[in-house]
Amino acid sequence: MLSLIGLGLWDEKDVSIRGLEELKKSDRVYAEVYTNDINSGTLDRLAEMIDKPIIVLSREQVEDAKELLEEAKKKNVSLIIPGDPMISTTHISLRIDAKKKGVDLKIIHASSILSAAISESGLHTYKFGKPVTLPFWTEKYKPTSTYDSLAENAKNGLHTLLFIDLKEGKGMNSKEAFELMGKIEEERKAGLLSKKSKILALSRVGSDEQKVSYGTIEKLEKMNVGKPPLIFIVPGKLHFTEEEVLSLHEI
Amino acid sequence: MLSLIGLGLWDEKDVSIRGLEELKKSDRVYAEVYTNDINSGTLDRLAEMIDKPIIVLSREQVEDAKELLEEAKKKNVSLIIPGDPMISTTHISLRIDAKKKGVDLKIIHASSILSAAISESGLHTYKFGKPVTLPFWTEKYKPTSTYDSLAENAKNGLHTLLFIDLKEGKGMNSKEAFELMGKIEEERKAGLLSKKSKILALSRVGSDEQKVSYGTIEKLEKMNVGKPPLIFIVPGKLHFTEEEVLSLHEI
Repeated sequence: MLSLIGLGLWDEKDVSIRGLEELKKSDRVYAEVYTNDINSGTLDRLAEMIDKPIIVLSREQVEDAKELLEEAKKKNVSLIIPGDPMISTTHISLRIDAKKKGVDLKIIHASSILSAAISESGLHTYKFGKPVTLPFWTEKYKPTSTYDSLAENAKNGLHTLLFIDLKEGKGMNSKEAFELMGKIEEERKAGLLSKKSKILALSRVGSDEQKVSYGTIEKLEKMNVGKPPLIFIVPGKLHFTEEEVLSLHEI
Repeated sequence: MLSLIGLGLWDEKDVSIRGLEELKKSDRVYAEVYTNDINSGTLDRLAEMIDKPIIVLSREQVEDAKELLEEAKKKNVSLIIPGDPMISTTHISLRIDAKKKGVDLKIIHASSILSAAISESGLHTYKFGKPVTLPFWTEKYKPTSTYDSLAENAKNGLHTLLFIDLKEGKGMNSKEAFELMGKIEEERKAGLLSKKSKILALSRVGSDEQKVSYGTIEKLEKMNVGKPPLIFIVPGKLHFTEEEVLSLHEI
């Protein structure tokens, strides 16, 4: 049996009681942390709580999970995954491979940035369109496709969750994010990310350091909106209760 | 201080360690369970775990939260909310009222059907459009607007999360849901919910009784897709890895 255990939003305290019990029962505990900006010390403290070592796997060991699945045929193996074990492409292959090899797979859910960001924003769940990432640019690859999703949602009056990218577990900071958004706006020029656009910036959701700030990009750029991981919300058409709740975070 | 504590997907074991610690520290613990189909015995077992009573509030006591907020001015008060404390209209007012009265408000997140359903489906998070509810019909109110969101998402190749309604904490069962979908299709006739449409049906996500079934509505109707709470996913355009992962649930 392979159990994918959600680590939740921030640190070891975001694991559910069900997850903790499963970890205590497991013969072997692994962790996959390369997709996320994990709070330092989390795994050490969790290992202490469950009184057994947690072995960190490399990206390759999760993507080509032959050994992991072989072990899971004979033992109860847990794999800790940050957030709610959302199905990234890696996890989809893991699931398909498990099925092929006849290994039972269980998911133990935990808090997720997807619902937590909506919850913290106070905006209506049913008014969120397709979410999108603001990806790092490289020398050769400078995508502006983030704007397509923003435009599609805006056309329908919907809000957009804008995931600010992570690379090798390190989140893009607000300075980089605002600069990138400026460059994309310059190229696309539809005013969705102009200096006067009002957006909601959320930093380190679910932690004691959480910051939520609402204002124009111009103002947000000049202040400290908090450290990564970041997630922004570009609001669509606002209901008056939504305006009221956003004003609680107005800078 | 008022803490909104997420109960998570299914029962007391879905509370996070952080949530449990907060409940243990609280002077008073309330619960709001009228918006959800809560697993029986959950609050009793949780009360035992935190060694203090949990007082269930009526809808009115949460909507007009004067007393709750007065108490939270002087004491550490917790309010347990099913799932991740998503911001229903009620919770938005609670937050705004707390701010007006100078009461600090904290949210402790937990697993949520929003991310758990996506996670269990194996479909790509970035391909989900606006979610929508399939609401109960009454003698006088027979809404078919669910279809508008389905059509909008389908046009853009996006998947739709279809929340199957709850009324007074009781979830619509699959027979009622399929009948209603049939009636809506009959009225709208765009083939999005035809007998040949393939959808994913998820029952009691996160519980030991969880069922996930993929097939045509015609086939799903004839089998037991599981008990409420239910959530359906109407897929948009499928990537080949998504087709592969859905086939794991093919009936």
